[in-house]
Amino acid sequence: MLRKCERIDQLYAEDIQIIQSSEVFSFSIDAVLLANFPHIQKRGQIIDLCAGNGAVGLFLSRKTSAKIDQIELQPRLADMGKRSIQLNHLENQLTMHELDLKDTFDHFKADSADLVVCNPPYFKESPTSKKNPNLHLAIARHEIHATLEDVVNVAAKLLKMNGRFALVHRPDRFLEIIDCLRAHRIAPKRIQFVYPKPGKEANVLLIEGIKDGKNEGLRFLPPLYTYDQSGNYSSALQEMLYGN
Amino acid sequence: MLRKCERIDQLYAEDIQIIQSSEVFSFSIDAVLLANFPHIQKRGQIIDLCAGNGAVGLFLSRKTSAKIDQIELQPRLADMGKRSIQLNHLENQLTMHELDLKDTFDHFKADSADLVVCNPPYFKESPTSKKNPNLHLAIARHEIHATLEDVVNVAAKLLKMNGRFALVHRPDRFLEIIDCLRAHRIAPKRIQFVYPKPGKEANVLLIEGIKDGKNEGLRFLPPLYTYDQSGNYSSALQEMLYGN
Repeated sequence: MLRKCERIDQLYAEDIQIIQSSEVFSFSIDAVLLANFPHIQKRGQIIDLCAGNGAVGLFLSRKTSAKIDQIELQPRLADMGKRSIQLNHLENQLTMHELDLKDTFDHFKADSADLVVCNPPYFKESPTSKKNPNLHLAIARHEIHATLEDVVNVAAKLLKMNGRFALVHRPDRFLEIIDCLRAHRIAPKRIQFVYPKPGKEANVLLIEGIKDGKNEGLRFLPPLYTYDQSGNYSSALQEMLYGN
Repeated sequence: MLRKCERIDQLYAEDIQIIQSSEVFSFSIDAVLLANFPHIQKRGQIIDLCAGNGAVGLFLSRKTSAKIDQIELQPRLADMGKRSIQLNHLENQLTMHELDLKDTFDHFKADSADLVVCNPPYFKESPTSKKNPNLHLAIARHEIHATLEDVVNVAAKLLKMNGRFALVHRPDRFLEIIDCLRAHRIAPKRIQFVYPKPGKEANVLLIEGIKDGKNEGLRFLPPLYTYDQSGNYSSALQEMLYGN
């Protein structure tokens, strides 16, 4: 089941086991935040873009009976994700597709998804940008193979009318994100900022939009804190990580 | 000094007395939040649009030696503001102008202000919108005489290059606000959401932008709460209202 330098981690809150490798990819708190953010319907079709080792889809599987398809470009990561699906006996609900976003519509129908989620690369790519020398990690973090525009374009096409798109990203790209969503007919509806601890500026943005939704009724949810003043996970994060 | 149905209230934190009237206008927590929000330079020119009874300018006067001009359309409110300036012996620093925003540039030069602040009417005006039957209050709350577009247009013209505009408004008009700012060459730079208490959605938006600023480096400040879980003013609000 495990290849060299891989390990099995556990998300206790969801009773999910997940194959990771610090040399290739391991999920971050942001994946947990994203899986806990969107309105999730009980049935239908969910698609996870830039799925990595499949963490977000695996966590979501405990919250819905919807079918979950995961799209990941990197063979090594997609392979880990496939084995995690087997490890958790979720073959009937989850499917990992090793696939370039650009080829999405060779395998998926437009206007078919109820929910698209994405934890994309956060950092703009330029010849001078400082990247991780590990190419697996560089591709996951920098917009080398998929930009924000690529991701939102694919998400918008995948979604049914009134389907939802949920994204985790960096607050410093906020204006670009809302412009991009609206340019692709996704109306921002719910926004939540995550702060590393009380008194600090936001370092994570969660945003959900509705395809062809009205440009009204934007809501800013109560803030989340990753850590409390003592440096322990906040109670909200503890619940997401360890359950009640 | 006082007319019928007027009273003198005190903002203890700033040692400011302010003439109010519940029949005409009294300042809200939002004015206190706005006065505590922007980067305030020690000297130069500050202009307060939609000044009401002058609360924001009066509170700001304690934080800077800058000259503060206040613009208010309603004669009754401007008159209260003028008497509050006298009451606090601030005639050398503050000037209240009874003036329609549309006539701003009959009295002020373009590209002259270092900081423009505004606590504008929050609610869109339409023939069917439910308004306060008291016209003083209706004008202060509804976009009857000045829309968001009017306010931002005047603010942008008043500001020097790299001058700052600070606005308090409602989060549900957030997208419209950032579009309007950018359309008038004001780059959003600092945003702070205010939540009525922990666990509730934001009900107040504070936003600061820089005229001709770069479209980068947007920051989301730590959230503010009006009340704590027990229903008392939060410590941050207590400090703004009562001082240390």
